[in-house]
Amino acid sequence: MLFTDISILDENFQRLDHQYVGISGSRIDFVGDAKPFQDYGQQIDGKNKLLMPGLYNLHTHLPMTLLRGYGENLPLQRWLEERIYPFEDHLNPENVYDAVLLGLAEMMKYGVIACSDMYFFCDAVARAVEKAGMKAAISRSIVSFDDTDLWDSGRFTECKELFAAYNGACDGRIRVDMSIHAEYTNTEKTVRQLAQYAKETGTGMHIHLSETKKEHEECKVRRGGRTPAQFMEDCGIFDVPTTAAHCVYVEDGDMEILKKHDVTVSHCPVSNLKLGSGVAPVAKMLDRGIRVALGTDGVASNNNGNLLEELKLTPLLQKGVNLDPTLISCEQVLKMATVNGAKAQGREDCGAIKAGNRADLLMIDLDQPNMTPCHEFLHNLVYAMTESNIVMTMVDGNILYQNGEYKTLDIEKILYNARKQTEDILNKLS
Amino acid sequence: MLFTDISILDENFQRLDHQYVGISGSRIDFVGDAKPFQDYGQQIDGKNKLLMPGLYNLHTHLPMTLLRGYGENLPLQRWLEERIYPFEDHLNPENVYDAVLLGLAEMMKYGVIACSDMYFFCDAVARAVEKAGMKAAISRSIVSFDDTDLWDSGRFTECKELFAAYNGACDGRIRVDMSIHAEYTNTEKTVRQLAQYAKETGTGMHIHLSETKKEHEECKVRRGGRTPAQFMEDCGIFDVPTTAAHCVYVEDGDMEILKKHDVTVSHCPVSNLKLGSGVAPVAKMLDRGIRVALGTDGVASNNNGNLLEELKLTPLLQKGVNLDPTLISCEQVLKMATVNGAKAQGREDCGAIKAGNRADLLMIDLDQPNMTPCHEFLHNLVYAMTESNIVMTMVDGNILYQNGEYKTLDIEKILYNARKQTEDILNKLS
Repeated sequence: MLFTDISILDENFQRLDHQYVGISGSRIDFVGDAKPFQDYGQQIDGKNKLLMPGLYNLHTHLPMTLLRGYGENLPLQRWLEERIYPFEDHLNPENVYDAVLLGLAEMMKYGVIACSDMYFFCDAVARAVEKAGMKAAISRSIVSFDDTDLWDSGRFTECKELFAAYNGACDGRIRVDMSIHAEYTNTEKTVRQLAQYAKETGTGMHIHLSETKKEHEECKVRRGGRTPAQFMEDCGIFDVPTTAAHCVYVEDGDMEILKKHDVTVSHCPVSNLKLGSGVAPVAKMLDRGIRVALGTDGVASNNNGNLLEELKLTPLLQKGVNLDPTLISCEQVLKMATVNGAKAQGREDCGAIKAGNRADLLMIDLDQPNMTPCHEFLHNLVYAMTESNIVMTMVDGNILYQNGEYKTLDIEKILYNARKQTEDILNKLS
Repeated sequence: MLFTDISILDENFQRLDHQYVGISGSRIDFVGDAKPFQDYGQQIDGKNKLLMPGLYNLHTHLPMTLLRGYGENLPLQRWLEERIYPFEDHLNPENVYDAVLLGLAEMMKYGVIACSDMYFFCDAVARAVEKAGMKAAISRSIVSFDDTDLWDSGRFTECKELFAAYNGACDGRIRVDMSIHAEYTNTEKTVRQLAQYAKETGTGMHIHLSETKKEHEECKVRRGGRTPAQFMEDCGIFDVPTTAAHCVYVEDGDMEILKKHDVTVSHCPVSNLKLGSGVAPVAKMLDRGIRVALGTDGVASNNNGNLLEELKLTPLLQKGVNLDPTLISCEQVLKMATVNGAKAQGREDCGAIKAGNRADLLMIDLDQPNMTPCHEFLHNLVYAMTESNIVMTMVDGNILYQNGEYKTLDIEKILYNARKQTEDILNKLS
């Protein structure tokens, strides 16, 4: 496939016009301003269009897509205990598969090409990601309130089996991480054991960290004065590549720890606001050189998978709450949503448009009212773009979504199944 | 026209399914759950669709659409002096007309059916609103740093002429308000004189109020200890129906004044964040019974006209900055975006779906991934909906936008003209 006479957002976040981009198999084979001699087959006219890298959603709970808007405006604890936990009790591999397909269908429309997902029934998650054609780092989240050996638990067996079955699957599209759900949902022994296993096996790690003030402060009481970040560091979690979601209440010392261990912070501003958690100190993190990426969190606390909202809200919030309109450049936040996500998932050949990289691309229609005029190109992408501008989503050279049509998914069946599964669960609950 | 078997969001913010809605001329003629005997002509199948009232954007500067993203990440004063003011110097009725058409085309896609616009070259603004088929309350903004009589100024002549030519025009679609730009850009004499004129003529008023901390605090020094709200009240501004944009720094006493005079606060959360102004105390205002509506502000500080972002961000911000997930119900914010906007513009027969009201409607496609499943209907509308769900925008019974097509506007010509006008201005500036 050859994109002709198209603009691109290059790896330095510059716009190059009148480019030719050739795709061969799963990779970008050619980028240049003259038409290549090689025949790439189908040509796609790039007039008034832009190619940019696909977006990484670095914190999701895809099976929770069936809980969209379920239990709203409740205090956190009541929300969890009265609504979320009882509903989750009725999830199973079959309805999780349907839920994940629904979540992925929604997200490819918003330009998301990869998720870092943390949940359970991960085999079903992996099968849905395989089917949809997207990328994912999938982890089975460990929660353990007693001190039995992790090695003897069924949860851990699931982690190992998931890793054996799916790590590197689909030509590397699927990766498997380990996951400690959070400090407050695990014993120190469990955390240390999973860290040890991840280190020996060479996997990444996905955790929740300092999401709420309560969690952060109670940890210090529980763990002999240690913050969640200090506790995780002590347990060896950060000895493997870690994605830490939220980090709303990290202190200065915590940021040093995150930087030292090259942890990726997954910033989820919509969810943090919606649950009344607060605003993460992202501007400070960037000043300290911490790698920050973006996440929607589950749709139960968002309530959609539209990462474009996080893309705009991240700089808005830092400017607004710090009363400083100069904070966070468009380049910084576009980096968060693309190459930082790819790095966090250990994908060195993804997240930027250059020859040799994987062809994970969005084609953006610039010939729309909201992209007109174009004074400062990056600002239009961050502050004005909406999903209507995304006319193609491609992963590993395959078109997943184009001009409103799903190429890998039967969307009517997905909507039908998701509604049916939701109804069945609600019937059981009533 | 008859919508058959459709869901509606009724005036009590309840969802009614399987309804019939008949449109006759500019009005909703019939709403009921049985098919009416009368023949309404064309039938529109409402399966999996919802009718809701169109959205009011209660603070815009439409001619600034040509300044989208122009001068970003600058401190406020430099942004104004180095970028905005020099560009504005080159605006004229011709390029303002093109700019406004562009802004309106963008907004009808997002479900906006009416704007409260404050700027200059208002004759061109009115002509563009007439052409697009939308509703607007238009005001020529007064700025006056000297104490000459308002009556002798050309600006005031423009206000009077605009009022004579356009108030009530297009079967009431266009209304003309007076506008004091702000406390810090006017003398007390001017403010008092315009208030007097508005009162005598029976017009509404549109002002900026306490947008920044600097403006708010400096006012107290400048005006003998009075806050901007106290100053405006003293001058008689609030004796006429007033829309006060921003109100980020209003104090408790100011809120009493706003409530007492039934002022509508136009809350512009995206713009307030982007310019580093802060977060308005909306939850407090609602507690005190103040009418709050929503605005995007000009796209120079947004950078789009997508009021759906304000709809979601308003509850998110109040929950997030007050650390309380129970603040602001979906009903409250939907009210802000619809009937409160209509009330502020003095349109008693608009903003809600009921027989006799104007037919200002959005048709929403519920059969989309982001609206599935539907546990709590209002939460899907506020937190999950995006512009892709809006398949029809209707004003006074006329379809303006349907399934991606503009019915009153030549969108290619508008995009061409907007680019050309922008280029011409930039050439003059360079």
